[in-house]
Amino acid sequence: MTTLDKIANLAKRRGFIFQDSEIYGGMSGFWDYGPLGLALKNNIKKSWWKRFVDSRSDIYPVETTTIMNPKIWIASGHTKEFSDLLVECKKCHKRFRADHLKNQRCPECLAETTEARRFNTMFKTFVGPVENETSLAYLRPENAQGIFVNFKNIIDSYHPKFPFGIAQAGKVFRNEINPSNFIFRAREYELMEFEYFIEESEWEKWFEYWLKQTHSWLESIGLEKSKIKDAEIPEKERAHYSKRTVDIHYEFPFGFDELCAVAYRGNYDLKNHSEKSKADLSYFDEKSKKRFIPHVIEPTFGADRLAMAILSQSYQEDEINGEKRIFLKLPPFLSPIKIAVFPLLANKENLVKKAQSVYESLRIFFPMMFDDAGNIGKRYRRQDEIGTPWCITIDFQTLEDETVTVRDRDTLKQERIKIQELKKYFENLLGI
Amino acid sequence: MTTLDKIANLAKRRGFIFQDSEIYGGMSGFWDYGPLGLALKNNIKKSWWKRFVDSRSDIYPVETTTIMNPKIWIASGHTKEFSDLLVECKKCHKRFRADHLKNQRCPECLAETTEARRFNTMFKTFVGPVENETSLAYLRPENAQGIFVNFKNIIDSYHPKFPFGIAQAGKVFRNEINPSNFIFRAREYELMEFEYFIEESEWEKWFEYWLKQTHSWLESIGLEKSKIKDAEIPEKERAHYSKRTVDIHYEFPFGFDELCAVAYRGNYDLKNHSEKSKADLSYFDEKSKKRFIPHVIEPTFGADRLAMAILSQSYQEDEINGEKRIFLKLPPFLSPIKIAVFPLLANKENLVKKAQSVYESLRIFFPMMFDDAGNIGKRYRRQDEIGTPWCITIDFQTLEDETVTVRDRDTLKQERIKIQELKKYFENLLGI
Repeated sequence: MTTLDKIANLAKRRGFIFQDSEIYGGMSGFWDYGPLGLALKNNIKKSWWKRFVDSRSDIYPVETTTIMNPKIWIASGHTKEFSDLLVECKKCHKRFRADHLKNQRCPECLAETTEARRFNTMFKTFVGPVENETSLAYLRPENAQGIFVNFKNIIDSYHPKFPFGIAQAGKVFRNEINPSNFIFRAREYELMEFEYFIEESEWEKWFEYWLKQTHSWLESIGLEKSKIKDAEIPEKERAHYSKRTVDIHYEFPFGFDELCAVAYRGNYDLKNHSEKSKADLSYFDEKSKKRFIPHVIEPTFGADRLAMAILSQSYQEDEINGEKRIFLKLPPFLSPIKIAVFPLLANKENLVKKAQSVYESLRIFFPMMFDDAGNIGKRYRRQDEIGTPWCITIDFQTLEDETVTVRDRDTLKQERIKIQELKKYFENLLGI
Repeated sequence: MTTLDKIANLAKRRGFIFQDSEIYGGMSGFWDYGPLGLALKNNIKKSWWKRFVDSRSDIYPVETTTIMNPKIWIASGHTKEFSDLLVECKKCHKRFRADHLKNQRCPECLAETTEARRFNTMFKTFVGPVENETSLAYLRPENAQGIFVNFKNIIDSYHPKFPFGIAQAGKVFRNEINPSNFIFRAREYELMEFEYFIEESEWEKWFEYWLKQTHSWLESIGLEKSKIKDAEIPEKERAHYSKRTVDIHYEFPFGFDELCAVAYRGNYDLKNHSEKSKADLSYFDEKSKKRFIPHVIEPTFGADRLAMAILSQSYQEDEINGEKRIFLKLPPFLSPIKIAVFPLLANKENLVKKAQSVYESLRIFFPMMFDDAGNIGKRYRRQDEIGTPWCITIDFQTLEDETVTVRDRDTLKQERIKIQELKKYFENLLGI
């Protein structure tokens, strides 16, 4: 089994991530999140939001719809350009992305494939009760355009001082020809991005600034520096309006691939939307008394890919007393469950009662789990697999001296702590 | 101007809610959230999540995709039943929902309308590079089916004790024939709902329980009891599988209409999915040693409608010294901005510096705004309009004795408070 398979396996078994519509044979490229996976993803999203939105007064968040006026995608170039090269196997008629094939052969039956043709990867739909060209609309393939078409709204309502950014986190949809690598290349996923509006003359300075900020945040959520590298996108592969794009790659179990990106988009989008919509998308700078269409630096982060990077890096196997152990070495602040509470024996009423009271007294402060099923060893294994950093066991000594054992997921060390000191103890460990 | 127009106006002017794709002439039935509207909606969602997910150990949250295997919608009856009656004006050819017309006449040109025909209100799309019947899929019109098809996953990964619930919050899509009343009837919106799995014999008890919980939460977010009423859905209007449905109506500016609902869906969904998918969707109860397909009670809440109810109720006009004032009397815990800080004069460096230091010292604890534009009266008006409960002014006395004035949005009273006591002062007011 590959490491990727092991992670997908654990993710399903422990309720992190499920194949979408699984009881109906699934739906290729779509994934559902169970309670633990959702908590992990939400913890990553919260950290992003805190860093790039809440702690800054220069970033304005918006939430735009998935379906927008289709004229937006004409102006942005997406109806023309947002496509992949598609080939079909002449024998088995399966379809593939041309740039994913090693030669001109079908990867499944090795037969010859057809000439490549362009396939637009935006999902289509129809708005209103008539289905025709005038009601045709698309599901957004990126959050950025929702930001650009709200640029004037933000200016008019908030009068932001320059430079400033507009952020958006939300679902995007891309009709991938071949979804692959678990949640890495899906058809529906979540992006967190912002456009930072700047003067053209300062683009290099701001590019460096946001590239640094991006790396610094990735490190802050515990991703290892050695598994991250910048991929400078060469000129001929960049969008024609971009003077510089850096993809930030992470070493997933299947190799280095894109985790996030920082792109300089010039003023291409605002200029186009301004021309096509006739709206004035310029900014008047009170300080310099100049009116201009701002340029932008755009850092983009994939929430699902970040969850996958965290899962990949945390997935560990070791041995305890000759027995194999699987555990998720999650940074505690990202762990879905911070603390589990066990009564040593499930059939001793006074132990169970005491354990429940410890559980209840802490759960208003921390995400917790109570477990009295099976022996203690099995319960540790379950918590190890979901990445719970600490387990509390209530034993007979607890009933005598009000102390419990706290066991550490990574060091396996056990410490005896007084019940009344637990809250402070965990707050210290979590740095809160 | 109607109250609804006034609210929509304020929402746009102050950056709460914008018409989607406005610079391209808009997109009927789609709305974007600006920073303040997003903060308000998020505060409502957080309160819901805390009450119904985080503070309970019997509710398991999931996040399923928008596009799922289309077999789900066949099994649930949506491809057949999820439709509205559509009529067309014989003269102007505009289309309307038959049940929204007062007579058989077109509401715009008064001409006769055609016979009503069924129109399925799920948005369609195609998944993969071929567009035909086999690639046809739908955007989900509710979150519930994503929950039902993950029922077995939750059982297998979490072994929940009975009774328990599965919750989901997320976007849903309904191709409304005539979107109307601002964000009330939109084509893309957000639902928060859960299915609570129970034994059939106990459905009445649990129905009452969840109806009470729903009312209690609505009151906890500040909605007035007198503006809320239950609408018992008569048998012939209920889905055929439901033995009881209560819509909870709120008195919006355009009259009483649905805000949320509690429905008893029997075991219709799990039974159907079990039959159609061949998956075993039964539950084995360790206590009673019985295996059965659970019945469900389903409370559903519209996030956008809740935001609209809060906005409607908070919208107030009064007079201060003969001048008209518009203000949002938001419950402070829902207010996007809790505290604004002003230097009395923007051109006095020492006042501005002091104000900035007060702002910086508090903004790690509360959502804040700094404003030095225009005179103090204008700044109060701006904060009143966005529902900021408290404004701090730094004046010359501050420089002498380290006190500031705190002005209350509702009572207009001003109090002098010591800077070092501000944090505690606001924590008390916010009850944190």
